[in-house]
Amino acid sequence: MIEKKHGAILILSGPSGCGKSTLLKEVYKNIDEYYFSISTTTRKPREGEKEGVDYFFTSKEDFQEDIKAGHFLEWAEVHGNYYGTSLKPIKKALEKGKLVIFDIDVQGHEIVRKKLGEKVTSVFITTPSLEELEERLTSRNTDSKEVIEKRLENAKYEIKYFQKYDYFLINDDLKEASKQLVSIANSTRIKSKLFEKELATIWMK
Amino acid sequence: MIEKKHGAILILSGPSGCGKSTLLKEVYKNIDEYYFSISTTTRKPREGEKEGVDYFFTSKEDFQEDIKAGHFLEWAEVHGNYYGTSLKPIKKALEKGKLVIFDIDVQGHEIVRKKLGEKVTSVFITTPSLEELEERLTSRNTDSKEVIEKRLENAKYEIKYFQKYDYFLINDDLKEASKQLVSIANSTRIKSKLFEKELATIWMK
Repeated sequence: MIEKKHGAILILSGPSGCGKSTLLKEVYKNIDEYYFSISTTTRKPREGEKEGVDYFFTSKEDFQEDIKAGHFLEWAEVHGNYYGTSLKPIKKALEKGKLVIFDIDVQGHEIVRKKLGEKVTSVFITTPSLEELEERLTSRNTDSKEVIEKRLENAKYEIKYFQKYDYFLINDDLKEASKQLVSIANSTRIKSKLFEKELATIWMK
Repeated sequence: MIEKKHGAILILSGPSGCGKSTLLKEVYKNIDEYYFSISTTTRKPREGEKEGVDYFFTSKEDFQEDIKAGHFLEWAEVHGNYYGTSLKPIKKALEKGKLVIFDIDVQGHEIVRKKLGEKVTSVFITTPSLEELEERLTSRNTDSKEVIEKRLENAKYEIKYFQKYDYFLINDDLKEASKQLVSIANSTRIKSKLFEKELATIWMK
């Protein structure tokens, strides 16, 4: 008997303000058997952020110890803070045949792709333009002017990597963008590379 | 302004009896801006098949002339008959940004992929097992015993190529399989390879 679906990884990247979190909420409503990978970070929680939901918040010291112990699939320093992904829960979810969803940056994407190669499908999400990103960041009113500047600089840097991703998704219409992201999520687990090479033989038995 | 979607090609292959035609009908209801590439063939129409809907039916002589004139994107001889895809309508549809859908065999897939490379997404569709394929072919009551034998032999040959396809779709539940095929169709036109390399620059303007 051939397994119809396999464990796979869906990586989402894109500048803060591109609407990733809102899109993700739509995805969750419309797919099953997923596991959202929660990052660990040393940055301070923003208003409303919850431990174990948005991030696992930790100290720089503990984070550095975990790096040494090899507990991270990937980690990076961004804007002076550490962000990382613990390996254990990912492995478990993949073994169970789940779709593991990551919200990580371009550096993280590169590392995970290198390490878990064929299991990965990735989407770069962005606004239609840089101006629109600035507008969204300003109007959400959560960051200081300096932080917004930093995010915009970072966005300019990240978008250069869009062709390393499998898909490029412009989020200018939430309904349409959600539909496309759900479509991508629904198809990742039947990529032919996830099936065993011996499948042809199994099929003929 | 960045185009949000691009012209792309979706290739479907799989043994006769795997349910491709039924699945395709579901896809058509749920996607837009597609163009279904109708093949030209020298085989006799089966009962109910219509010229210009199922195939363009033609003579061996005319087919061979079109080959010489370079009118085919791909062509092949299968079970003693010619099958081919005319190039012109495909080009037009791609320029208009449509999703061009092909129902062709493994040979055709290889040729189209070689010629139109990055634009191609492909799906190998099959039944859960060879026995089930035999059952379906027998129960649909359209082919002689000899033709069914030929089709089963061909299926055994074709499935060996499944890893050349992007997706592997087991059609044992029409509703689920349709959903997956629609998902694949919906995501093909935002593959990052379809976007210009200059996009990063455009986005920053």
